[in-house]
Amino acid sequence: MRDAYHEELDAITDQLVDLSGLVASAIGRATSALLDADLQLAESVIAGDEQIDAVYHDTENRAFDLLARQQPVAGDLRVLVTSLRMVADLERAGDMALHVAKIARRRHPVSAVPTQLRSTILEMGQVAQLIMAKAGDCIQHRDVEIAAQLERDDDAMDALHRRLFTALLDETWTDGIEAAIDITLAGRYYERFADHAVSVARRVVYLVTGERVAT
Amino acid sequence: MRDAYHEELDAITDQLVDLSGLVASAIGRATSALLDADLQLAESVIAGDEQIDAVYHDTENRAFDLLARQQPVAGDLRVLVTSLRMVADLERAGDMALHVAKIARRRHPVSAVPTQLRSTILEMGQVAQLIMAKAGDCIQHRDVEIAAQLERDDDAMDALHRRLFTALLDETWTDGIEAAIDITLAGRYYERFADHAVSVARRVVYLVTGERVAT
Repeated sequence: MRDAYHEELDAITDQLVDLSGLVASAIGRATSALLDADLQLAESVIAGDEQIDAVYHDTENRAFDLLARQQPVAGDLRVLVTSLRMVADLERAGDMALHVAKIARRRHPVSAVPTQLRSTILEMGQVAQLIMAKAGDCIQHRDVEIAAQLERDDDAMDALHRRLFTALLDETWTDGIEAAIDITLAGRYYERFADHAVSVARRVVYLVTGERVAT
Repeated sequence: MRDAYHEELDAITDQLVDLSGLVASAIGRATSALLDADLQLAESVIAGDEQIDAVYHDTENRAFDLLARQQPVAGDLRVLVTSLRMVADLERAGDMALHVAKIARRRHPVSAVPTQLRSTILEMGQVAQLIMAKAGDCIQHRDVEIAAQLERDDDAMDALHRRLFTALLDETWTDGIEAAIDITLAGRYYERFADHAVSVARRVVYLVTGERVAT
């Protein structure tokens, strides 16, 4: 019985890793859709959010079920409650990818990204995808060192976010209000996406070390 | 022992209600600070977020402690896990108030809100404060009817949010990019604030009826 229980616990961890993969892919594709005004790609990210939500609910139900049936104590209880939080972070990060894709769809056939910001948005998308891939590795290997890397990646994201605002507020901005709104929102979504990945990593640190990192 | 346990469970619920009160007050004061470019009020909201975070962590620790010590089953387990989620929603809503206050502080001594949007922002602040007060009532009384009201209030918030964008995209917008950015972000913060209140109410519905409302 005890073994079946730990198998189920491992299965939940596997689902978290899978979910981080789905979410990392979603933000990468959403970024391409945004840059290239690719409606089909945007629609695929939007449709794919249902799968992310389904995995989220399934993981949540399994964790809940295990809590109720097995009454785990100490370490196992901590793993389960932490899993419930990580899955919520991953689902929210998926929503950020969804929001980016929706900007792409709304502005199609025009790209929402002015030429001079293309490389910044591209880089934000890359950092976001990478940070979520690392969050997945962090969950899988319980790797505190990767968690430290994520904090640095998040600093890089914050620097990119500031670069966006600098461009928006520059006197040479001639792309108008609509583009400014879209870029402001997209910037916020990327920043939040990275925050959720960092939050996942911090929860892994908590599991491994018992120390709570301020969120 | 069982009675002490239920007392502790009630104490956690009381803390959730208190926290919703703190957060409702924070968004009301942040809105005043934003509209009136009131630096002192903005600083008080910013400083007050520490108290909100302290109550959040304390509530979380108590719930966790109870989970570990008492190994609750079925209904009580559901209450505890749901409490952990509600407290996270409330803390995030508090962050939204913090962000609004930070806009006020950044733009001081100028108000970030152009004249023609003052009433819309005022109304968003009022709806936000009210919806969070209702979320507190909903937690306290386990009242599913109030939860239904919150959904309607959230529709009102969405309508106000659309009104902001209509103003931003109107050809007569002459307040420039910086104001457009601040209004875009503030709008997002109010909308998210209301979403967190709705999420709390839906969790109460889940506790009462066992039915999960899509989030």
